[in-house]
Amino acid sequence: MSTAFDWLEESTKPLSQLSFQQAKSRQNELTKPAGSLGAFETIAIRLAAMQNTAKPSADRVSIHVFAADHGIAVESVSAFPQVVTAEMVNNFARGGAAICVAARQFSADLQVWNLGTVAPVEGGSIVKNRIIAPQTTNFANAPAMTEAQLSKALAVGVEAAESASEQGSLFVGGEMGIANTSSATAIAAVLLACKVSDLVGPGTGLDKAGIENKTRVIDIALARHHLSANQPIKVLRSLGGFEIAALVGAYVRAAQLGTPIIVDGFICTVAALVACRVNSGVHDWLIFSHQSAEPGYKHLLSAFSDHQPLLNLGMRLGEGSGAAACIPLLRLACAWHTDMATFAEAAVTVQDEK
Amino acid sequence: MSTAFDWLEESTKPLSQLSFQQAKSRQNELTKPAGSLGAFETIAIRLAAMQNTAKPSADRVSIHVFAADHGIAVESVSAFPQVVTAEMVNNFARGGAAICVAARQFSADLQVWNLGTVAPVEGGSIVKNRIIAPQTTNFANAPAMTEAQLSKALAVGVEAAESASEQGSLFVGGEMGIANTSSATAIAAVLLACKVSDLVGPGTGLDKAGIENKTRVIDIALARHHLSANQPIKVLRSLGGFEIAALVGAYVRAAQLGTPIIVDGFICTVAALVACRVNSGVHDWLIFSHQSAEPGYKHLLSAFSDHQPLLNLGMRLGEGSGAAACIPLLRLACAWHTDMATFAEAAVTVQDEK
Repeated sequence: MSTAFDWLEESTKPLSQLSFQQAKSRQNELTKPAGSLGAFETIAIRLAAMQNTAKPSADRVSIHVFAADHGIAVESVSAFPQVVTAEMVNNFARGGAAICVAARQFSADLQVWNLGTVAPVEGGSIVKNRIIAPQTTNFANAPAMTEAQLSKALAVGVEAAESASEQGSLFVGGEMGIANTSSATAIAAVLLACKVSDLVGPGTGLDKAGIENKTRVIDIALARHHLSANQPIKVLRSLGGFEIAALVGAYVRAAQLGTPIIVDGFICTVAALVACRVNSGVHDWLIFSHQSAEPGYKHLLSAFSDHQPLLNLGMRLGEGSGAAACIPLLRLACAWHTDMATFAEAAVTVQDEK
Repeated sequence: MSTAFDWLEESTKPLSQLSFQQAKSRQNELTKPAGSLGAFETIAIRLAAMQNTAKPSADRVSIHVFAADHGIAVESVSAFPQVVTAEMVNNFARGGAAICVAARQFSADLQVWNLGTVAPVEGGSIVKNRIIAPQTTNFANAPAMTEAQLSKALAVGVEAAESASEQGSLFVGGEMGIANTSSATAIAAVLLACKVSDLVGPGTGLDKAGIENKTRVIDIALARHHLSANQPIKVLRSLGGFEIAALVGAYVRAAQLGTPIIVDGFICTVAALVACRVNSGVHDWLIFSHQSAEPGYKHLLSAFSDHQPLLNLGMRLGEGSGAAACIPLLRLACAWHTDMATFAEAAVTVQDEK
């Protein structure tokens, strides 16, 4: 077996059980009925355990959008033409995309990683070129990537995660790549051992006939690849996009470095699934941001038993936009945890024992 | 009939249909698949219609917490002793409560309206004393308020709404009052014509026996009052708290003035129900913030057919905390609406027609 991927299995950072317990106790001392802040309490406690501190923080956030084109796009599996990947990278560079607006709104750092697009990209200060190829190989015909390409894509994710970690930031991954719900759906179908038709959806806006074609394309492709759920790296190489592989690399490395990960929607959750199958320790470092409107998302989520996304607002844009939308909620959770008065400090009578 | 309440039926401000249509068109021109920002699109469009502008804003927000004690508390319907109402007002004044932390986090204005507590309140710069009585009459025995008291409580809400309106702010109402889920549950049971047992819940943390007692207390009280669903003002006077009445007054006046209202959890949604029954035009001005963990919330929500709360995070604190948690989401919705590039501006190819 290749050793280029051995690093993926290195241990992730353990959570601090002491900080977890202390944070849990503190939540019960704050001037509110126990548990009444719901998921805001849970998330503050989890962040305290991840950051090994009594004062968890989500002040610093680094958003990394990975962009790449997909050979499978030639099979008419997307509502948008392939040129849009590069055009959207240009839109990111000029600050006009949803993720740019969210990054500004929440003063988060934004980097865009260009892993290869068919149309040329103009570039710009936030765009980092790490071009692997103009696009993946059409996985309807052959493996999407060579081992060398997969290794490069993972390494871009590592670079992004290490940059976030150095800044002491939470890590938000996002993606842009026309046809990447097809890639993600194919990966998830193998790893979850479920039918493509249970996972497939409209992506950026396919109609019924489009979804039927997409299902057929993926079904035929999977019949050719003979993949099994216990081969996550091979599945990723055979079906993945460069941006999905970069997300996998980023999630694994972030978990190894002890950097909390805010997971965006369908594509990112598939990357998180691959990451957890490669290294189960990644699971502890994931914060699920939003329930994607893509129909396969619910199936995906069931693979992460104790996680629930914070938002369910019918979003299905990608770019990391749903993860970014959670930033102020994480900050509020931390502020409540850190800044609220305790019953003792405020001289408020505690709950009757019943 | 008394004319002291006639103002409640005066017309609410109409939404701008032109701004609504223009905002809807703009959302479809922004560089994203149509509809892919889900509820963020809907809320931006609604705010544009409310504010009659192409650039909706949630920058200014005024939070008004109404506090009052309840005679029904003597029936052991709360997990906390009655003294906590005043103690929490003091905690608000000192900045230690959840709503204070949220207001600071989002740079929102915070006012606390003291309508009457059994224990003394220290006061403080954000506390406005509008004391009606130390508490309502125990509605297990008699109407909770006189007509004069109800009129005063409504007027406090009017004062708050007018203050928010003058500042050009969105209006967030919150409440504090030990035993006020009993009052709210009783009101909702009459207005929704449903069983108390379908609506009753633990409030701040009652156990099973406590909930059974609370149900019994409310059932017996309702049997004495002989109220019907088409008497919302009488229902409010008979069963309400001063803070619930203030919320009703605030919601009606805010809608009349054209001030968007962010509705908090169970208690505030009951106040919104009363407001809509008194004046159906209020409905257009409501933005539901979060699905309360209080079991009766779902029944309540079904009375507001086309509204869905933004968050579902298991919150059940009150104080306006869930409404406050939505402030950054509303701001993000406005930022996306206003600041994203259009397909034309960004030279991004539009979706294939399929």
